Formats: sequence, structure tokens, C-alpha cells
Amino acid sequence: MTTLFWLDLLGVAVFAASGALVAARHRLDLLGALVVAFVSALGGGTLRDVLLGLTPVFWVKNTLPGAVALSSALLTFVLMRFLVFPTRVLLVLDAVGLGVFAVLGANRALEAGVSPFVAAPMGMLSGAAGGAIRDVLCGEIPTTLKAEVYATAALFGAAVFCALTVLKTPENLALFAGAGLTFALRIASLRFKFALPIAELRNDS
Amino acid sequence: MTTLFWLDLLGVAVFAASGALVAARHRLDLLGALVVAFVSALGGGTLRDVLLGLTPVFWVKNTLPGAVALSSALLTFVLMRFLVFPTRVLLVLDAVGLGVFAVLGANRALEAGVSPFVAAPMGMLSGAAGGAIRDVLCGEIPTTLKAEVYATAALFGAAVFCALTVLKTPENLALFAGAGLTFALRIASLRFKFALPIAELRNDS
Amino acid sequence: MTTLFWLDLLGVAVFAASGALVAARHRLDLLGALVVAFVSALGGGTLRDVLLGLTPVFWVKNTLPGAVALSSALLTFVLMRFLVFPTRVLLVLDAVGLGVFAVLGANRALEAGVSPFVAAPMGMLSGAAGGAIRDVLCGEIPTTLKAEVYATAALFGAAVFCALTVLKTPENLALFAGAGLTFALRIASLRFKFALPIAELRNDS
Repeated sequence: MTTLFWLDLLGVAVFAASGALVAARHRLDLLGALVVAFVSALGGGTLRDVLLGLTPVFWVKNTLPGAVALSSALLTFVLMRFLVFPTRVLLVLDAVGLGVFAVLGANRALEAGVSPFVAAPMGMLSGAAGGAIRDVLCGEIPTTLKAEVYATAALFGAAVFCALTVLKTPENLALFAGAGLTFALRIASLRFKFALPIAELRNDS
Repeated sequence: MTTLFWLDLLGVAVFAASGALVAARHRLDLLGALVVAFVSALGGGTLRDVLLGLTPVFWVKNTLPGAVALSSALLTFVLMRFLVFPTRVLLVLDAVGLGVFAVLGANRALEAGVSPFVAAPMGMLSGAAGGAIRDVLCGEIPTTLKAEVYATAALFGAAVFCALTVLKTPENLALFAGAGLTFALRIASLRFKFALPIAELRNDS
Repeated sequence: MTTLFWLDLLGVAVFAASGALVAARHRLDLLGALVVAFVSALGGGTLRDVLLGLTPVFWVKNTLPGAVALSSALLTFVLMRFLVFPTRVLLVLDAVGLGVFAVLGANRALEAGVSPFVAAPMGMLSGAAGGAIRDVLCGEIPTTLKAEVYATAALFGAAVFCALTVLKTPENLALFAGAGLTFALRIASLRFKFALPIAELRNDS
């Protein structure tokens, strides 16, 4: 669990940095960048907590993740004027964060006593909804609802974690298997460019 | 109440199918279509539950509506490649769902002990907010805030249901009267093309 | 506190009127204008209550603010066809509302027992998030995330209020100092056209 604790904070920092970079593409100001970064990093878990009634939401009870998100966003805000951020490295770290958020989010839902059929989507929300809210705030359709295997990877990893937990697999094994599957699916989809089918109407309609 | 139970599930299925069709217009992928369909069908009731503090929200406690929404969305996702969906039938079924959601939503709010002046808008949210969140996710201004008599029909039906309940009318009568009024207003507005006045600024400003 | 009670309702009325005017720019209908006005006036406090778990949210428990918001919106809806609203007066009254919402929101968070580091952003949300949700509903990136010193002013005022409260300053003094600072910052930023730095990527990226 200690490894996951650090990987979780790494995920928060990376999601926040990506949020600040998206904010720059939309020419937001410093406050806008901090808000969008915060939402990117903590919005998914916030939505999960609100839907499950686990309020006050996690970052109200424990200010560490919020502090990490804001520090990362501030650092990114300054550095991005001078450095070109390595897209490839960010994508890999983001995939790590996605996997960790998915299993920890599903775990939090299971601990709240909900069905695994709800806990798996809650893991998906924890990993992917922050980016979706970020996109809506920036006036765009969430990319994760379009061609990218992103929320899908989080859903699969969270589902495997839930299945392993129901089967009484040791918690650490279940967590790492689920997070690893999400990571692998996400990276493979980027590497081999596979994606889900697109919703299409009959040609003549 | 048994009739309403089935009509409620019918509403969930129809709202989800419409959501999947909207997703196709925006070329979302399978996961995007499922998410947008789920939000269209269950988003209004979710918002109501969150505002009233009735958490975990209803579809966490009872997975049936979620299963119906996802099944309907999946079926629509497949069928829409081969069939042209009958717009007129969908609009009628959607109006049925709107009426049922409005009265059941208002009823849930009254049972939670809130004032009828709050319960009526909660009925409106239950019926119309899912579609509004769907539109926002798809990058559009919610159509129900523009020219359509949609949320308005839900509000009137929910208000009549609340008034009848306060007057101790038998529950079934109140439910069917409210749902019927919403249905009739919605269909009449489509048939006779009436609408609310538009917000307009003075010409020279 | 009586003064603040009235200033709070004044803020609700002004925020709702602005919301109705924004609705007219997007050609929403009467229901759309009422919804957008309600969200502008009460959306920020609603989000705060949901995140803190203070549910049912405040306007469910006490219908006065909702009634004020809807009355103001309705009046604005009618009057704006005949009158040109005085932009400058509205901006000043809006700044009063922003200050009052910020300190009262932070106060409500402190009373709920959260850390001042969370209460200050909650004050910011109370003042500025309603307008942000309004903008998202109208298909725009929230202006407060871009060049305007708006949420920033609310954050500073709320932070000063929290600091003074931690230092055991008499409540009224802390409230007026925080609200006054927000008001002064907001008006000064409009008068002297200062703003936060914009998020910018390195030139060649």
C-alpha cells in the first residue's frame, strides 16, 4: 500500500500538470490554470464521493492531495514558459495515474459497501471523470468519450480489481493487477492505435 | 404503482436510446455512447438525489435502472447501423418517460420531507436535467433551455402532482394526473408548435 | 449580521438579474432564463454544500433565496425589453454580492468544521462558481477562468476572513474586512485593468 500511496500522489501531480497544460492551450489565467489543474487531478474522485455520499469529499478531509495538485500546477505554470514538456513521458505517467486512481477509486467504493457492478464504474469515474470535467470547463467534448481508450482502460482495470476482490485475492495483488491492466491497455492503445467502435447512424438517415 | 414501475423503466430505456442516438450525431465511441445514454436516463434523478442529500444516489442502491439504461444503449448502438429509428414514436415514448420521471421525482422529494415549492422543481430536474447534462457533455447549450416546452411540461406536471398531494388526493390519482398533464403539454407543444417567450434585450442595446 | 443578511439577498437578486441578461444574449426562453438566473445566484453555494456534505443544500431548507432569485429573474426578463440596464451599476452591485457570498460561504465552511485552507476556496466557490456553471450551461468557457479578477478577488477576501477568524477577530469585523477586500479588489481590477498572468506555453511548442 505504501507504493500505491506514492503512486497516487504521482498521479495527482501528473494529472494536475496536464490540466495546467490544457489551460495554457485555452489561454486561461493563473487562477484558471490552478482550478482546471485541481479539477483534472481531483474531480473524478470528487464526483465518486458525491455520488456515494462520502461527504465531505476526500480533499476536504485530507488536504495533502489538493496541496500536491496545486503545487504541481504552479510549477507547471512557471516551467512551461521555458521548457517543452516531454509529451511521451507525460502520457506514460498519466497512464500510471489512471491505473492507480481506477483501483483505489473502486476500492473506496467497495469499502463503502456498494455492489462490484457499481464499484467498477466508480473506479472508472475516479480515473477518467476529472479529465472529462476539465474538457467541459474548457468548452470541449470530453476526449475520453470519443476515440481514446482511456475511461475504457480504467473500467477494465477496476472491474478486474473488483472481481479479484470478490474472489478473496490478497488486496495488494488485486490492486496491482487492476492498475497494471489499466496501464497496459492504455499504453497498448496508444502504441498500436486501437480504439472502440464509433457510434454511427445508418447511412441514409 | 406497478404500472408506474414499468412506465418508469420504459422511460429509462427510451431516454437511454435517445442518448445513444445523440452520441452518434457527435461521433462518440461505444463507451461515450454508453456514458451519454446513462447520463440522459439517470442524470436528472442523480442531480435530484445529490441536492436532497439522498445519497448514495438511487442507481447505486438499486442497479436495475442502470442495467436497463445500459442494455437499451447497447441495443441502440448496434441497431442504429441497420435501422432508421422512428422519430415520432421516440418523441411520444420520451414524453411518457418525462411525465413519469417528473411525478416520481417530485414524489421522492416530498417523501424526503421538503416543501412542495422545492419538490415541484425537483420533479422537473428528474425529468429534464439528464438531457441537459447530455447536451453539455456534447458541447451544446441544453435545448430544454431554449425553445422547447420540455422542462416546462415536467414542471407543470410535477406542480399539479404536488398540489394534489397536499390536498390529500389519493396517490395514484395524483401521480397519473401529473404525469398525464406533462405528457399532454409536451405532445401538444410539438403538435401545435407553441413555446415560451424568448428572453430578449431592448432593440438598441 | 442583519446588514449582511440584506446584502446577501441583494447579491442573490443581482446575480440572478445578470444571469437573466446572459440568458438573453443566448436567446434562451423564459424557463431557460429562470434556470440560468437561479444557477448564477445559487449555484456556487450549492456546489459548496454538496462538496461539504451539507445536504439538503441551503435553498432546499430555506426557500427565501430561491424566491428572491426567481423574482429578480422574472422582473429582469420583463424589464429588459423596455430598459437598457446600467452596466456600471450592475458591476458594482455584483462586486458587493461577490464579497458577501465569499465571506458567508467561507464562514459556513468553517462552521462545518473544515480547515481554513479548505474554507477559503469554499468561499471562492460560493461567490464565483455560480457564474462559471452559468457560462458552461451557455456553451462558454467560464470568464472567471480567463482574464478577469473575479474568483481571485473572492479567494483573497475569503482567505483574509479565515485568517482573521483563526486569529479570533470579532466575527463582524472579519466578515466586513473580507467582503470589503473582495469588493475593493474586484472594482480596482475593473478600474485599473489589472489581471493575473496568462498560462503560456514556450513559444516554439
